[in-house]
Amino acid sequence: MPQIWNTTGQKLHPQVLKYTVGDDYILDQKVFLPYDLKASLAHAEMLVRLKILTPRELGQIKKGLTEIENLWEKGKFIITQEQEDCHAAIEQYLTKKYGKAGEKIHTGRSRNDQSLVMIRLYEIDVLKRILDLSKKLITKWRKWARKNGKIKMPGYTHMQKAMPTTVGVWQSAYADALTDANEFIDEALEVLDQSPLGSGAGYGVPLSIDRKFTAKKLGFSKVQENPIYCQLSRGFFEAQALNAADTVSFILIRWASDLMLFTTTEFGFFSLPRNFTTGSSIMPQKQNYDVFEIMRASASMVESARNEIQQIAGKLPSGYHRDLQLVKAPLVRGLQTALGTLETALAIAPELKPNKEKLSAALTKELFATAEIFKRVKKGVSFRKAYGMVKKEIKKEAVSDQL
Amino acid sequence: MPQIWNTTGQKLHPQVLKYTVGDDYILDQKVFLPYDLKASLAHAEMLVRLKILTPRELGQIKKGLTEIENLWEKGKFIITQEQEDCHAAIEQYLTKKYGKAGEKIHTGRSRNDQSLVMIRLYEIDVLKRILDLSKKLITKWRKWARKNGKIKMPGYTHMQKAMPTTVGVWQSAYADALTDANEFIDEALEVLDQSPLGSGAGYGVPLSIDRKFTAKKLGFSKVQENPIYCQLSRGFFEAQALNAADTVSFILIRWASDLMLFTTTEFGFFSLPRNFTTGSSIMPQKQNYDVFEIMRASASMVESARNEIQQIAGKLPSGYHRDLQLVKAPLVRGLQTALGTLETALAIAPELKPNKEKLSAALTKELFATAEIFKRVKKGVSFRKAYGMVKKEIKKEAVSDQL
Amino acid sequence: MPQIWNTTGQKLHPQVLKYTVGDDYILDQKVFLPYDLKASLAHAEMLVRLKILTPRELGQIKKGLTEIENLWEKGKFIITQEQEDCHAAIEQYLTKKYGKAGEKIHTGRSRNDQSLVMIRLYEIDVLKRILDLSKKLITKWRKWARKNGKIKMPGYTHMQKAMPTTVGVWQSAYADALTDANEFIDEALEVLDQSPLGSGAGYGVPLSIDRKFTAKKLGFSKVQENPIYCQLSRGFFEAQALNAADTVSFILIRWASDLMLFTTTEFGFFSLPRNFTTGSSIMPQKQNYDVFEIMRASASMVESARNEIQQIAGKLPSGYHRDLQLVKAPLVRGLQTALGTLETALAIAPELKPNKEKLSAALTKELFATAEIFKRVKKGVSFRKAYGMVKKEIKKEAVSDQL
Amino acid sequence: MPQIWNTTGQKLHPQVLKYTVGDDYILDQKVFLPYDLKASLAHAEMLVRLKILTPRELGQIKKGLTEIENLWEKGKFIITQEQEDCHAAIEQYLTKKYGKAGEKIHTGRSRNDQSLVMIRLYEIDVLKRILDLSKKLITKWRKWARKNGKIKMPGYTHMQKAMPTTVGVWQSAYADALTDANEFIDEALEVLDQSPLGSGAGYGVPLSIDRKFTAKKLGFSKVQENPIYCQLSRGFFEAQALNAADTVSFILIRWASDLMLFTTTEFGFFSLPRNFTTGSSIMPQKQNYDVFEIMRASASMVESARNEIQQIAGKLPSGYHRDLQLVKAPLVRGLQTALGTLETALAIAPELKPNKEKLSAALTKELFATAEIFKRVKKGVSFRKAYGMVKKEIKKEAVSDQL
Repeated sequence: MPQIWNTTGQKLHPQVLKYTVGDDYILDQKVFLPYDLKASLAHAEMLVRLKILTPRELGQIKKGLTEIENLWEKGKFIITQEQEDCHAAIEQYLTKKYGKAGEKIHTGRSRNDQSLVMIRLYEIDVLKRILDLSKKLITKWRKWARKNGKIKMPGYTHMQKAMPTTVGVWQSAYADALTDANEFIDEALEVLDQSPLGSGAGYGVPLSIDRKFTAKKLGFSKVQENPIYCQLSRGFFEAQALNAADTVSFILIRWASDLMLFTTTEFGFFSLPRNFTTGSSIMPQKQNYDVFEIMRASASMVESARNEIQQIAGKLPSGYHRDLQLVKAPLVRGLQTALGTLETALAIAPELKPNKEKLSAALTKELFATAEIFKRVKKGVSFRKAYGMVKKEIKKEAVSDQL
Repeated sequence: MPQIWNTTGQKLHPQVLKYTVGDDYILDQKVFLPYDLKASLAHAEMLVRLKILTPRELGQIKKGLTEIENLWEKGKFIITQEQEDCHAAIEQYLTKKYGKAGEKIHTGRSRNDQSLVMIRLYEIDVLKRILDLSKKLITKWRKWARKNGKIKMPGYTHMQKAMPTTVGVWQSAYADALTDANEFIDEALEVLDQSPLGSGAGYGVPLSIDRKFTAKKLGFSKVQENPIYCQLSRGFFEAQALNAADTVSFILIRWASDLMLFTTTEFGFFSLPRNFTTGSSIMPQKQNYDVFEIMRASASMVESARNEIQQIAGKLPSGYHRDLQLVKAPLVRGLQTALGTLETALAIAPELKPNKEKLSAALTKELFATAEIFKRVKKGVSFRKAYGMVKKEIKKEAVSDQL
Repeated sequence: MPQIWNTTGQKLHPQVLKYTVGDDYILDQKVFLPYDLKASLAHAEMLVRLKILTPRELGQIKKGLTEIENLWEKGKFIITQEQEDCHAAIEQYLTKKYGKAGEKIHTGRSRNDQSLVMIRLYEIDVLKRILDLSKKLITKWRKWARKNGKIKMPGYTHMQKAMPTTVGVWQSAYADALTDANEFIDEALEVLDQSPLGSGAGYGVPLSIDRKFTAKKLGFSKVQENPIYCQLSRGFFEAQALNAADTVSFILIRWASDLMLFTTTEFGFFSLPRNFTTGSSIMPQKQNYDVFEIMRASASMVESARNEIQQIAGKLPSGYHRDLQLVKAPLVRGLQTALGTLETALAIAPELKPNKEKLSAALTKELFATAEIFKRVKKGVSFRKAYGMVKKEIKKEAVSDQL
Repeated sequence: MPQIWNTTGQKLHPQVLKYTVGDDYILDQKVFLPYDLKASLAHAEMLVRLKILTPRELGQIKKGLTEIENLWEKGKFIITQEQEDCHAAIEQYLTKKYGKAGEKIHTGRSRNDQSLVMIRLYEIDVLKRILDLSKKLITKWRKWARKNGKIKMPGYTHMQKAMPTTVGVWQSAYADALTDANEFIDEALEVLDQSPLGSGAGYGVPLSIDRKFTAKKLGFSKVQENPIYCQLSRGFFEAQALNAADTVSFILIRWASDLMLFTTTEFGFFSLPRNFTTGSSIMPQKQNYDVFEIMRASASMVESARNEIQQIAGKLPSGYHRDLQLVKAPLVRGLQTALGTLETALAIAPELKPNKEKLSAALTKELFATAEIFKRVKKGVSFRKAYGMVKKEIKKEAVSDQL
């Protein structure tokens, strides 16, 4: 069945259909449909208040939306390429099954604001889960730091031994970083918390709809009033949602990079249980930390997704453009990557085992050269003089070592 | 069935499995499996020459590989998450069904070079199709330019009318650009044309395998000798394949941007048949050029994919890392986007209709101001003087227009 | 004079010096030095409390720092390539002129935390200016919207006429967007508001320094306690500072894109006074809106700068790495671009003149098709039926227009 | 002196001037001016053939251009912000000093093609130097590989010991990679080898100029005929020039990442002479490989520059836009970074010293597990069976080691 809003009544040229729809209908099927159902229900309830829908019609719509959800959960509500998206699929289902109620559901909304609100509900949902997991990871890291905290380890700069530190300071650094990252996520959630439903195609609707009502029903604390801004925020909010998620990823790749180094045979400071590591198809001795490698790559994925969104939305004049449909795929890709990385970090965090002997053996003399300076500073030598003295001694030792 | 190369014999921790495998097994299922079958056959044929496989075992493997291909085409060869990738799925199928022949197939190769060669076969295949379509598009554009070429149109700089040009010069500019783009694709194909099969895990195999034989069987014109380089080229070659594809996308988004502008009501220079345009769910008058909008976004997708690859592979020490698995998804995403964009441009190109009246009406006086200068230059006035004279006259007219 | 902390006493290989220092000393000269002076003063005052500096030595240091600032303002404090950065240049100046006081100034700090605090003071300073200008722009836009607000204009989707709106709604959309952008800037300022001074090379200093004292002196509301986190935040905070600045740029490029379109001859909805537009070296009639073109490109610059930072800092293990020096240039580039774009938007905003005739002429019939539907909806026709009826009528008219 | 092509005769609004010109005039001063002089001379010589310039006027122009070059070399030819670029500065100098000859120099060209040809000459020049240095580096690496080649070293996958290799294979891998990179540079040089001079503002010039003549004079092997394509290639060619340069950077960061790891105390496989390493301002023992750290960051810089260009030029309709001016800065930044990285690699390459004892000690037993399998394969055991046997033995040993 071709789209009823198709310009011509004739079918869209098949290559144009295939190209413009892309994987969007699959993405709607996989990720977005339940959010559209939720928003459609709120919209229908509002239409009753406007007396556009009768209570009976609302009953039919509620029933229909529940049927769709149940079918979907069983993998039996299938959006077709010709339907293009879940918006059409839902309206067509309702119309086919409940007639007039279905024909009325789209009153006072457009696919543009329908899509906006659905995406926003999704991203708020995932960001909240990310924030929650991030808080849990902080707790796990702090607990680990308390337990193992006093074990000494070398601190590095330029990947060379610098000064002594402890395993606890090292792990707590990441907990502190994540605490700040959470501030960015909180902020994104706060800005996103405004309902675009009712902004129509981007220029409002010539009908006195009750936007506050639907906003409240959907859990938003306010209405995003200006309809042109609603459309302008597409891409803007998605990029900021990903930026917030990326603060976490960006910190976790640094942690993973540390652990890739500290789990080499050569460093050997930490290890994971064997069922966290993988083998090789030809090298039977192998015990690889793939989990940190995927994590190391994860921020590249989240950041690329955010950049893709900003590049797609960038330079577009105001008003909806089909380009913006393509924002959905990188949004999902980026948020799911950040989420998966956090889930994995949570599974790993408590399992990380410090190798006390290796760590202790690594605490070699050069790490204490700076402390040596400060002994002299405390005796009244100026810092730079004391530095020169210690440096000279180190050089002498190096020469005598070679003799 | 857990991987036989799993370190411990115990199952991998489920979150680690889920996270490290990601969608890779689905991607293998969807895109890469036939290329692995092809490479596996060449490898098996080589093993017969080494007398590692008997001719009978080769027969079994050939049969097995064909069975897999047939099942796959019907959607019945399913790679499981636990198998992780098509490499394992193929070996397990062969071993289960043909015993010893299957146990021998992995002799002298590793999943690392198996993956390398499979990906390379894929990207060469797609790049060739892109090159072919690009050539066809040039032909169509040139034909269109010959047909419509003499129609005059305004040339713009800074989106303001500049000097007159023709529809033919405008369209031919894109044909010329694509001709140069093809040079970059050709070059990428030339560099990629070397076989990594036989480089093992990145350090060769302690067996005198015949790499020239498999290279030739697979259509490569040479062997990529250094096994460490084979691994180093992962990410490098994929980024360059995408860069080559992007040269086409980058040109097509400029064309699409022109057409988004030139099909507005306000410009109205060109149009497409109605079955190439789309409507709106609430605005019945709409005729939108979504097809150019998706095209306008396409380079953002290809470029983001390339950047993702370069960021994933960047800064890794030499040798295989699991991070590199994540190069596959953006590679496929980028190449398929470029391919789809070309297919669509090919469908559109001959349908583009110049609106002669609108074009003619747009040829207003100011476009000829520069020609005015040159009339005076030809009479001996210096360029800058003539420029000043014409400018003064334009200003006078503007003032008198306002009176 | 070679660096006193040079490992060997011998000069660094000239190519290594040139390559590792890059333009960093020029950037310090141009941008960062005053922030280092400020932080050095706070550090010196703290050293008096520790009795490491005598009050007399503090006096000398204060005098020296003021001298440097005065010289610098006159362009006479020149940092050399061999000094590498302003940190060395300042210490050397103080030591040469005031002897022991200079030799003591570096007690309890490292170039690593010195650099961290200097950069943070800079970015907080610029972000505050960006926030201030952004607020001013909102005020100007709102004022403009109040003044011109009721003028009708066509609203576009897909760059095709959609529904009517007003100049006021259009401009207010941007004011609303900027209001949300400011939330992100505020948040960045809040997270950045913690002092890294005293974290040494990233592992603290073996001396009981008073970090709260210096934090307060420098206007920070708290200390960034964990020294490893201080180093980890390098790149993280800079990327977030740029992300905050980019929220503004991202909105302004949409505004600029609108205006590039709306100032074409073909649209002609708005204009700027002639001294805001530029001409051409060969086309005397030209009046170009270059200012919107540069603005349209600005987000690409800010976003590339942010990405460069994230790519440079990404995947590094914890602890300082020289790579991080390279974060400074894109930070300055990005923040200055965002700042300049805002300054320019502020100059333009009140000058934008709506062309009432052109806007009025553009309000053609098709813009009211959706309103037509709702007239019928109000009479009880279901939305989708009414939509079908209006569509049919439009098609009939189109056919009769062609007759 | 305001630009003579300024629309109004009045001065441009100062903020608009500052914002639109940006640092462009400084960049022209620093980098591009000599290329403009070269192109201006070729253009003037062509104008004599057209009898627009007299031989005497050509003489004056030649003299004037030489004077400018000499002044420039001494830092005494200063382009002002009001002149905006070197194009205006040159024309104004010639006009002021030589009157009519100067007024004629701009006949038949525009700032648009003048800028295009100048940039192209620059990028060809730098790419050739990059190619030359890259070839030299290959030679040095191959020589080093021949000298040190037989020293054994562990090969790593997943940063864990995998199989044995040699220092020679390792270094040669990079030489092979660079050899392929050079193919991409060669190709870029080939495509860029076409002259845009004479394409005017993007729509040709109403004068029969001799484009072949100027192309030949400037060393181009052909004319880039279509004037609209000339403008379209802006951004396209620059992105490809940077992509070519980046192939080298991308390989060098992998080399640098290897060396950051292999020069840690823990690995200790290689070292550089002390005057290639740096110290710390507070840790007197330090010997840091900053040079590899800057190199590790370099590809991020080149790639960001390329992306910035593609994002700036992306989505622009055809024809010149002021946005394109902003392509110059990242072009220079990216190419100079790639060049500096190569110069540095050349200085380092021969100095790299393998530490034979450390390398030898690192050749531990597990590296030979795969060889163990193949011993059994040669005796007729199937690969997968042999793999299982060796794996079991390794596990037994591991257990007995723990007893």
